[in-house]
Amino acid sequence: MNILGLSGSLRAASINSMLLRATVRLAPKDINVSIFNRLGELPLFNPDLEASLPANVVNFHRAVADADALLFASPEYAHGVTGTIKNALDWLVGFEPFACKFVAVLNASPRAHHADDALRETLRTMAAVIVEPASISIPLLGVDLDESAMVATPSIAGAIRESLRAMRNAVASRQGSFTAEFPIR
Amino acid sequence: MNILGLSGSLRAASINSMLLRATVRLAPKDINVSIFNRLGELPLFNPDLEASLPANVVNFHRAVADADALLFASPEYAHGVTGTIKNALDWLVGFEPFACKFVAVLNASPRAHHADDALRETLRTMAAVIVEPASISIPLLGVDLDESAMVATPSIAGAIRESLRAMRNAVASRQGSFTAEFPIR
Repeated sequence: MNILGLSGSLRAASINSMLLRATVRLAPKDINVSIFNRLGELPLFNPDLEASLPANVVNFHRAVADADALLFASPEYAHGVTGTIKNALDWLVGFEPFACKFVAVLNASPRAHHADDALRETLRTMAAVIVEPASISIPLLGVDLDESAMVATPSIAGAIRESLRAMRNAVASRQGSFTAEFPIR
Repeated sequence: MNILGLSGSLRAASINSMLLRATVRLAPKDINVSIFNRLGELPLFNPDLEASLPANVVNFHRAVADADALLFASPEYAHGVTGTIKNALDWLVGFEPFACKFVAVLNASPRAHHADDALRETLRTMAAVIVEPASISIPLLGVDLDESAMVATPSIAGAIRESLRAMRNAVASRQGSFTAEFPIR
């Protein structure tokens, strides 16, 4: 099972990126969590480019298509989503493998709700399936923990493991439903 | 008086960009409306770059600082703002000349409210002053008018002129209030 992490911040010391890196380290053996580190290299979305997609977009599409689920961690800038995460999503509008994809939205700053609400609204509009038990709030702002400290903090590590378990259950349940719909006789 | 137009779409045939170009053509002699055509060349916002700003960001900042008011025209993508317009705003968070700037938000698709609401929330959060009488809805989606046709359509041209008049009044009233606060005796 492949989970792809997408951080909405390009800052090297981004708490959201650290949270995703902590998730990579906490993943059990049967879940491969990787992070797409090149959202900052995507061009700004231009529908005129869709006829001949830039290589960076093709690579992004491939990574999304290969993932069973996507894990978003993105800060709020000026009561809105970051341009970086929305630009990435703009490139996924109409990208068929994205539809019905399982997604979870981590929120490292539970007091911020504008970006979280807007990101969820866009994901729903794009026909993603938000896995609520995997979409957890982990209050990390002002706590000054790096990824190693997150991994070493039982409450945080426990919440991340819980999110991964919920994502695994969602993916497994769909595989189950596919089997039920198309039984091998 | 300088008004700077910002389109949230990079598409060559963008209705929002055409609306701004129609505004340039309809501006009276005492209002200089120009369009910043290079939002697509801004890098994706990264706070780590703020110590040494990329040249494209410096040029954008200069254009914003030189404007008495900003005119936004931006489509809605997947019930959200476009990554392009939010990225431009992310580069203006904390840019001092943006604070208290007069802005207007044109809406070419009045049935779409998510992006309009989110853009206004972000602008207010960034301490811009939204000039409501200049922030008009002009139903243009599906109408298939280019900028020349917009200029030639009395209802549309009239609405654009009304928006410009409202912006001029706002800018003039502030200049008036400055004079009142600091009278020359």
